[in-house]
Parts: sequence; C-alpha cells; structure tokens
Amino acid sequence: MEFSAKQIAALLEGEIVGDPDVVINNLAKIEEGSEGCISFLANMKYEPFIYSSRSSVIIVSKNFVPKQEIKSTLIVVNDPYLSFTVLLQEYQRLTALIKTGIEEPSFTGSNTTIGADVYRGAFSYVGQNCVIGSHVKIYPHVYVGDGVSIGDNTILHPGVKIYSGCKIGNFCTIAAGVVIGSDGFGFAPQPDGSYKNIPQLGIVILEDHVDIGANTTIDRATMGATIIHQGVKLDNLIQIAHNVEIGRNTVMASQSGISGSTKIGEGCIIAGQVGIVGHIKVANKTSIGAQSGISKSVDKEGTSWFGSPAIDFKDQLKSMVVYKKLPEMLKKIEEMERKLSKN
Amino acid sequence: MEFSAKQIAALLEGEIVGDPDVVINNLAKIEEGSEGCISFLANMKYEPFIYSSRSSVIIVSKNFVPKQEIKSTLIVVNDPYLSFTVLLQEYQRLTALIKTGIEEPSFTGSNTTIGADVYRGAFSYVGQNCVIGSHVKIYPHVYVGDGVSIGDNTILHPGVKIYSGCKIGNFCTIAAGVVIGSDGFGFAPQPDGSYKNIPQLGIVILEDHVDIGANTTIDRATMGATIIHQGVKLDNLIQIAHNVEIGRNTVMASQSGISGSTKIGEGCIIAGQVGIVGHIKVANKTSIGAQSGISKSVDKEGTSWFGSPAIDFKDQLKSMVVYKKLPEMLKKIEEMERKLSKN
Amino acid sequence: MEFSAKQIAALLEGEIVGDPDVVINNLAKIEEGSEGCISFLANMKYEPFIYSSRSSVIIVSKNFVPKQEIKSTLIVVNDPYLSFTVLLQEYQRLTALIKTGIEEPSFTGSNTTIGADVYRGAFSYVGQNCVIGSHVKIYPHVYVGDGVSIGDNTILHPGVKIYSGCKIGNFCTIAAGVVIGSDGFGFAPQPDGSYKNIPQLGIVILEDHVDIGANTTIDRATMGATIIHQGVKLDNLIQIAHNVEIGRNTVMASQSGISGSTKIGEGCIIAGQVGIVGHIKVANKTSIGAQSGISKSVDKEGTSWFGSPAIDFKDQLKSMVVYKKLPEMLKKIEEMERKLSKN
Repeated sequence: MEFSAKQIAALLEGEIVGDPDVVINNLAKIEEGSEGCISFLANMKYEPFIYSSRSSVIIVSKNFVPKQEIKSTLIVVNDPYLSFTVLLQEYQRLTALIKTGIEEPSFTGSNTTIGADVYRGAFSYVGQNCVIGSHVKIYPHVYVGDGVSIGDNTILHPGVKIYSGCKIGNFCTIAAGVVIGSDGFGFAPQPDGSYKNIPQLGIVILEDHVDIGANTTIDRATMGATIIHQGVKLDNLIQIAHNVEIGRNTVMASQSGISGSTKIGEGCIIAGQVGIVGHIKVANKTSIGAQSGISKSVDKEGTSWFGSPAIDFKDQLKSMVVYKKLPEMLKKIEEMERKLSKN
Repeated sequence: MEFSAKQIAALLEGEIVGDPDVVINNLAKIEEGSEGCISFLANMKYEPFIYSSRSSVIIVSKNFVPKQEIKSTLIVVNDPYLSFTVLLQEYQRLTALIKTGIEEPSFTGSNTTIGADVYRGAFSYVGQNCVIGSHVKIYPHVYVGDGVSIGDNTILHPGVKIYSGCKIGNFCTIAAGVVIGSDGFGFAPQPDGSYKNIPQLGIVILEDHVDIGANTTIDRATMGATIIHQGVKLDNLIQIAHNVEIGRNTVMASQSGISGSTKIGEGCIIAGQVGIVGHIKVANKTSIGAQSGISKSVDKEGTSWFGSPAIDFKDQLKSMVVYKKLPEMLKKIEEMERKLSKN
Repeated sequence: MEFSAKQIAALLEGEIVGDPDVVINNLAKIEEGSEGCISFLANMKYEPFIYSSRSSVIIVSKNFVPKQEIKSTLIVVNDPYLSFTVLLQEYQRLTALIKTGIEEPSFTGSNTTIGADVYRGAFSYVGQNCVIGSHVKIYPHVYVGDGVSIGDNTILHPGVKIYSGCKIGNFCTIAAGVVIGSDGFGFAPQPDGSYKNIPQLGIVILEDHVDIGANTTIDRATMGATIIHQGVKLDNLIQIAHNVEIGRNTVMASQSGISGSTKIGEGCIIAGQVGIVGHIKVANKTSIGAQSGISKSVDKEGTSWFGSPAIDFKDQLKSMVVYKKLPEMLKKIEEMERKLSKN
C-alpha cells in the first residue's frame, strides 16, 4: 500500500511542510528510516536524528522549531505520538482487511452457523453445533471444537485450539498456538498410590476485547466456567488453571501462572514469571512484581507485592538490599559474640 | 443427552424424593444450578443453597435432614460426593463415545496399521511404519511421525505433535499442543565461539495411564530414551529435557522444568514453576514447593523441599519469616556495635 | 539402515580388531547395547562394561589396552568420543535425507517461489509472496504467513507458525509448535481503565544457524525487528518479547524470558527459568544462573550473575549459605541484646 504525504496529512489533520506528493509505503523509527518511510519526532532526545533522517516524511509537533535544515517532508500536528498511533491503527486496519474468503480444504461440522465476511484459512477446522460471528478471522490450522461460540470481529491466529463448549466474545484476539478449554489438572489419589482423573466438565468463557498471547493455555473448569472478563490482556506462555476468574482490564505478562479456583480482581497488573497459588482472592488494582510468588489472598485494593514469597513491594526492596550484606552481618554477629564473651 | 431422575438414581443406587420423571441434561454447582441441572450437597457449608437452588435434581446424603422445604427432586445416597464423581465419569464416558469415524482429509503413510474403532480428525497426520492401537482418538491437526507406536484407548488432542520413533502407552491422554520427541538441547562449543548441534537420536517412551497437559514439551534422548513411567501426571507448559526419567505416579504442576539426564523417583509431588537441574536423582515420594530450585540430588525418600535454592521445607519457612526482618536486624546489629565500641 | 564394521571404520579412518563384516543398525550406550548396536568407550570409568557389552561393535582409543577378552568387534581410533560424534552426525544426515517430495494436500499462495529439493508435509501452509530456499523441510501443519522468506537448508518441524513478513536465515532448525512473529504485548491505558492495542507492525529476523526449541515464542517488533543473530540456540518454552535483540552464539535454556526492547550480547550463557526485564543491555559473554532475575543492565563483559534479583554469582552463593542461618542469627542478636541491656 502506498500513500502520499497529502493523504496522510488529511487523515491526521496536520499541515505539510515540504513536498505533499512524496510517497510512503512503510513506517520506521526516525533513526532507522529510509526512502518511502514515515517516522515521528515526539521525544526531543531524538531531535538530532531528524537532521540526518532518510525517512521521506516525519510527523512533528507544532511546537517544534528546527535548528538546522531538514531533508524530509514534515507533517505538523498537535501531538506527534498520538498521530503516529492513529496512523499505525489505520495501517493495521487496512492490512487486516486483506484476509477474507474461504481457502480450501477447510472443515465445517454439521449444524454450524457462520456469520458474514469470515476468513477461513486452509486446514482450519470448525466442529458441529458452533456459532461463529461476523467478520471473524479463522487462520489456517485453527481447531474449534463442537458447540463453541465465537463473537463478532474476533481473530483466531494459526494453530489456536478451542475445546468443545467454550464461549469466546467479540473483538478478541487469540495468538497462535493458544489452547483454550483443555482439561483442568485434577486427579484423585487412590490407595495404591496411583491417581484417577477427575472429569473436567466445565468450560472457558472469554468476554469481549480479551487478548491472549502465543502458546498460552487456559484450562476448562471442573464444573461451571473459567472466566476471563472483558478487556483482560494475557501475554505469551501463561498458564490459567481450572475455575480461575480474572477481573476486567487486568494485564498479565509472559510466563506467569494462576493455580486452580483463584479469583483475580479488576485492573490488576501482574508482571512476568509470577506464580499465584490456588483458592485465593486477589483484590482489584493489585500490582505484582516479576517472579513473585503470591501464597495468600490479597484483601486490600491497590497494594503492591514483590518477591517469592511476596511481601509489600517496598519492604521487599529493603530486605533485598540487606540480603546482599548477609555474610558481613554474620561476621559482625560473631565478632560481637566474641567481644561479649570476653566481658 | 438427557436423563430422568429415575435413570440416575438407578445408576447411583439411590432413593428418589420428589418427581422421578424430571429430566436433567447438565451438571452444575448447587449455587449455580438452573432448570435441567443436577447438583450435589456434600459439604454442609453449602446447605443454605439447597433451599434456594434452581437445579432440578440434587444428590444428598442419607444423613441429611432438611430444615426447610426444598423445591428440587432429591436422590438420597450414602456418599453424595462419591456418587457425583461416578456421575461425572459416566457423563464423560458417554460424551467421549461421540467422537468416532474418519473425517477427511486425513493423511496416513505407508505400512502403518491402525486398530479398531479409531477416531481420525480431519487434517490429522500419521506417518509411515506406525502402529496405532484400538479405540485411539486422534483429533484434528495431530502429527504422528514415522515409526511411532500408540497404545489402545489413548487420546491425542488437537495439535499434538509426536516426533518419529516415540512410543506411547495405553490409556494415555495428551492435551492440545503437546510436543513429544523434539531434539534435546545439546550443542558442542567450537573454538570460534559457535556451537555445533549434537545429534539427538534417542526417543521418548510414555508408559500406560500417563497424562500430559497442554503445550508441555518432552525432548527425545540423545541416545536411549526419555522415559515417563506409568501413571505420571504432568500439567501444562512443563519442560522435560533429554534423557530425563520420571518414576511411576509422580505428579508435576504447571510451568515446572526438569533439566537433562535427571531421574525423578516414584510418587513425587512437584508444585508449579519448579526448576530441577540436570544429572541428579530425586528420591521416591519427594515433595517440592512452588517456585523451588532443586540444585542437588535428594537421597532420602519422603522429604519436603522449598525455596530457590531449595532447603528442608520447614527450615525454609523459618528463614522466610526472618528474611522479612532483615532491615530491622541490620539496625540492631549496628546499634549493638555502637554500644560495644563505647565500652 | 544397515552398515558393516568395515564401512564404519572407513568413515572414521579407524582400524578393525575382529569381524569386519558384522552388521550394525543402531547406536547405544556401552552398558545398554545389544546385537546390531555400535557403542564407544571414551571415559575409562566405563571400562568394566566393555568386557560384558553385547554391542556388536565398539569404538575404542588406540591407547586402550584390554585387560580381559572382549566379544565385540573393535574399531580403533585416535579419539573415540569425536569419532562417535562424527558417526552420529552422519547417521542424522542420512535419516534427514529421507523426507523429500510433496505430500498432499498442501497449500501454497500466489506469487510464492520455492527452491529445489524442498519437503512439503501434508497440511502445510505457505502464504503468498513468500520466498522459500532450497533443501528446506516444511513438516505437516507448518504455517508460513504472507511475505515470509526462508533460507536454504532450514527445517520447520510440525506445527511451526511464522507470521507474515518475518525473515528466517539458512541452516536454521525450528522445533515443533514454535511461534515466530506474534504481536508484541503492547497496550496503551485509557482513562476508563481499559487498554487499547498498540499495533505491532515490525517483524522477526532469524539469522543463519539459529536453533529454536519446541513451543518457544518470539514476538514481532512494534516497529523495526526483533533480531536473533547468527548461531543463537534457544531451548523450549522460551519467551522473546518485541524488539529484543540477541547477539551471536548466545544460548538460553528452557522457560527463560526476555522482556521488550532488551539487547543481549554475544556468547552469553543463560540458564533455565531466568527472567530479564525490558529496556536493558546485557554485555557479551555474560553468564546467568538458573531462576535468576536480571533487573538492570550488565555493562562489563564476561561477568556471572545469580539469584532473583541477581547479584555477582559468588556473592550470591555466600549470601545463600548465610540465608539458611537466619533463624539462628536472629536468636543470637536477641541474646546479645539481652546481655547488652543488662550491662
């Protein structure tokens, strides 16, 4: 896709300084741009690059006063960062439009209804008794089990697997390799030391605007549902166990895991490689630092936790500083003991 | 599937109080049930819900004496929890029966034999020289490499990948996205700083009744076999490196990892996000707490470990308590030093 | 495949002691070998096994002097371990040659060029505008998005997913289930507490001789590229976030993760379950112990780090030793305080 500076200035409601007919076909950082690229200057730390940038077009603030000559065409706007984001979204919207139609072979079970303008990649599988909304994109190698419902405008990237009975909302984006609805990890110990599987009959519910990262796994409930509420964003390689519930607009970074039946509140921020034990509640707006282990419920809203096991964030930082001095502290204790025994 | 209260009472050898012809078609928790659901009351903590429950049928103990009127039909049994488990298993057995037959297209290599009553999902791939047992379920997008053998009654969920030469036992359940038999991580450092791959020629052996969770990876041995013994249960996103051996009936929770050539004993319980170094042995019936790091062999049976690096479980809990007091301890030491220097 | 002792001796430039016509068809450890196997004796710890080994052929050093009768045929070489490695590589090269040709059905988009001697597994998908090199192996269920380029001699194992626009070098090996080019985890917080997706428009670049382990995920850059330089080896279940760069010949063990925009140097060794925060730089030849958390840049080359948060490796070992004594230290401090208060 190609656009002229003039077309972009119109989209961004900006003013052009330079050649309005220069053509751009790609986006780049200001320090990495080449001919045909559009870049932006928001953080003045990057100002030196604008004078040497090879990008064809650069978006700048109306407050920006150049100190040297600039070769690129400028588009002058109120907020260059915001304008660039608008541009990115427009670009993505246009590229997303490309995938449409039905590639063959694909498999659709009986009694399944599929909405308008759906993309079906080759080798994608949709079971029987499913309801697929409109404008859904089902990439190649996606598996949708029997009785699954998928809302409008949801994207299932290649190799997503959704077990039977699960419910996916509108405007969700599920990255490649994600598994939704696999059996929860439940086994009853037997007298001979072996384990008997506890049947996992529940489902997984994803509400609207949920994003799930690559190869993340979300187990179905033993009974009832594992529920991911509206606006939740999960990164890659995360584990969500059976009967977990995650509140609205909570975000979790990569490789974190939540054990069975735990309820996470709304608006929480959970960093990477965090582990949370089962059967607890974590209050709204809780922050949890990377690699932390949460071993009991967090009752008060808006608190910060860190460490394994996690304690108050600031207390943890203090203990971490002293931890490094442990060998020195031991020496001092021993010295003092010697002194005291002489007294 | 629909059943009458009468049919279910017969299965559970229970007595009906209420309408024997009421129909149920789903299972639900007592507090979440609606018309057509069957629930149970085992823990008396939940007794209040029985008086307002909208489930059509509720399984109760013969010792239960209602304090108010109950709208639902009751099935009275010796042990409601046990009866409900029986019901779950029966339900799962029936639903599992649904998937049979061959969906097309599927791919089968030459010289491969496939047993009776096998489900072959569309887009499933079975290579050449394989032996597939009876009553096996091979879901869509499963890959079975050349020379693989799969025992009777084993289930391969969507997108399971089994590399060539591996051997899978009877009654195994492999969840979606699992990779079995990928190359072990072995590289020989070269004088120029680069690494040369060490060929990985071994296989993976899963004995009978092994369950593997979604997106878990089990590498093939360099030579010989990575062996998962009978009755082992692995959760999601676990890493099992080359030449590892896991003893019978050991269970491992999500996101744990075992490094190369380590031997884990029988009946161990390993919590989530645990790491175990390579080339060690862990004795039978060892328990390991979440996020622990096991850096040396565990020789004695039946011990418990916790922390990174892991020490005795109870010692770790004691150290963890004191750890929080570190800043305070440092202050005390400094105060005492001042006092002592004045003497 | 079968070979005679004579054929193998010729390949290894070794001398035969025993029957030159004995046939081998498998490789085994000296203590596990059976008829038809070839083994080696390099570490003299294993010498006792050579006298009872049932392997048909054993590779030994020219310096080895038997103390008893040996039933196996010997191949005498300068360095038995090196010779065995050569043999392994030759074996793997031959077995790798087996997979060739096009299995059907497979899908290829328009305007895509594919080199000579490429293996296309059934149900593999290659989008439009791709360039696929020669001698590439594309196993079943592989997804290659639009506009992807793949170098010569690269192997994509079953179920690999490569999003559109990414560039893969020559002689790369990508294990089953790997996801390359998924959207980076970037969301802009909105005033109402929800998050808006930041479009991820960059790509992933893998240079030559890069190996990626099973189910590892590598996110595309927001803009520009996530870059994995030549000779990097990544284990299973690793997370590489958007805009990360990993220097030549760095190796990372399983379940480690690198957060967004971090640059890792060349020749680093990163153990398992390590977490590295975003927006930092890690110098060349840095070593990081298992389960460590790297929270700030490492500026000096060739240093070793350990712990969460990581400090100097040796300092960490010292603090870890003292950590176990914390309850005892607290007691001593309290005792001394009592003594001092009496003074």
